[in-house]
Amino acid sequence: MPSEFALIRKYFDRPGNARLGVGDDAALLQPAAGMELAVSTDLLIEGRHFRAGADARKLGHKALAVNLSDMAAMGAAPRWATLALSLPAADEAWLEGFAGGFFALAARFGVELIGGDTVRGPAGGPLSICITILGEVPEGFALYRAGALPGDDIWVSGALGGAALGLARPGDAAAARRLDEPEPRVELGERLRGIASAAIDVSDGFAQDLGHILERSGAGAVVDYARLPAFPGADARQVLSGGDDYELIFTAREARRAEIETLSRELKLALARVGSIQKAESGLQVLDAERKAMAIARGFDHFAP
Amino acid sequence: MPSEFALIRKYFDRPGNARLGVGDDAALLQPAAGMELAVSTDLLIEGRHFRAGADARKLGHKALAVNLSDMAAMGAAPRWATLALSLPAADEAWLEGFAGGFFALAARFGVELIGGDTVRGPAGGPLSICITILGEVPEGFALYRAGALPGDDIWVSGALGGAALGLARPGDAAAARRLDEPEPRVELGERLRGIASAAIDVSDGFAQDLGHILERSGAGAVVDYARLPAFPGADARQVLSGGDDYELIFTAREARRAEIETLSRELKLALARVGSIQKAESGLQVLDAERKAMAIARGFDHFAP
Repeated sequence: MPSEFALIRKYFDRPGNARLGVGDDAALLQPAAGMELAVSTDLLIEGRHFRAGADARKLGHKALAVNLSDMAAMGAAPRWATLALSLPAADEAWLEGFAGGFFALAARFGVELIGGDTVRGPAGGPLSICITILGEVPEGFALYRAGALPGDDIWVSGALGGAALGLARPGDAAAARRLDEPEPRVELGERLRGIASAAIDVSDGFAQDLGHILERSGAGAVVDYARLPAFPGADARQVLSGGDDYELIFTAREARRAEIETLSRELKLALARVGSIQKAESGLQVLDAERKAMAIARGFDHFAP
Repeated sequence: MPSEFALIRKYFDRPGNARLGVGDDAALLQPAAGMELAVSTDLLIEGRHFRAGADARKLGHKALAVNLSDMAAMGAAPRWATLALSLPAADEAWLEGFAGGFFALAARFGVELIGGDTVRGPAGGPLSICITILGEVPEGFALYRAGALPGDDIWVSGALGGAALGLARPGDAAAARRLDEPEPRVELGERLRGIASAAIDVSDGFAQDLGHILERSGAGAVVDYARLPAFPGADARQVLSGGDDYELIFTAREARRAEIETLSRELKLALARVGSIQKAESGLQVLDAERKAMAIARGFDHFAP
């Protein structure tokens, strides 16, 4: 069996632009002048964030996509990533597939793998994937969760509920693709610099993630359910509370509507104006066709009973 | 039971200097002018890197110490960290202990926790800890594994084999402390900028880690076993191949001996000159008192059979 070091080199040691990549005690990098560095870490555990036996290539894609989505939500351009894997056994076919999916997506967005760690976990234990992503954003232009003001429009990219539908109905190929191979909205995030007043990506579900914006911004919101871009076949629970869609929710002043509609056409990406920010007292209300408040199922909380 | 978000805030959301810490999609930071950023990720898995039931406070210390040691080996000043935890259950006493050990060490070295992720892993699954550490090093002054030249001295800090002894004999309190609460050689790493020609920390064992320097530098080495700083009670196998000591191995030109001895006194840290770098053909030889080559047990390889 090849050693850990040989396996890491074979699949993950690729030449790049960072001063030192995989293979020293740390990688060295330097953001360009005038740039801030955005840093985010996600840990994905088999049986919790993905099914046991999930396709390795798709998993390599998804693990990186989830992190790219965090960069999109900050308006940052992803540049570098570290990858730590815990595997119950050194499975070369799995590593090859995982690396294939990971590097294909990394290449599309110009992300360089600069370091990592591959360890064997206990036999029978879950596969774990920990990725830290680093991106650049011009100083002062990052998109925060805080920043939404009463009167701002609320926008959502793409479609909601597809990933939850894919989980419920694995036979629905389009929905399963949303779950297994999400498309991070990196270009949208970068183009929203200076336009959006707040942004977040949909990982826990629309209502819960919008809730994070409201909490950080000290605001409330009214949303028209009919305007929410439902993935074909998704029900209200999936649209409002399904996680893993990796769309962006963002807010912007009314005066930016025309710009945002132009951006939607340029990116060939649907951007739906779904409601407006209110004062905090309003809480979060989602109204049905009769303008009645809908019940919102609780979103995904890893430690909820 | 408090929600994930409440738990994260309670134990990990502390005010800091980064522009945004725990609680947005990413943290924002900026290395000071003229600084490069050193980045490293480690994944620690219960049952592999630490015992099931390990003391939470000590584990919080060790998880960060392992990462600080990577910064030391690069000559970088640690500044920021992200922390991702996978727990089989939300155990508040455990979280309190872990956070206590983590933040006590972080405070000593001025490291700020800027982000993270806390997830519940499958029931019965192992605890996993993934830390990414970021540090600053003046441009051009990082310490690499490559850089050792024939004729350079080989130095080791502190003592070797203590952690392996602590694993073999948990009743040996001093040795157990070396295993459970290693002291990262951060000040030493920073002071070796411009002095050391190569450096690495001892995580896999002296022979294997020195081997990484040799491989990256295209060099060989001769080491006198008698000069190696053995931890009291450690045997040759523990000294040469025991992992987890988190001492620094570094190389430097002969002309730097006086400076290094002064540094040892200033830091009150033993620095032992244990051998010299040779041409690659020599391989790695450790000589006993009769100048005969000793057998070297294979170091720790996570995927070795």
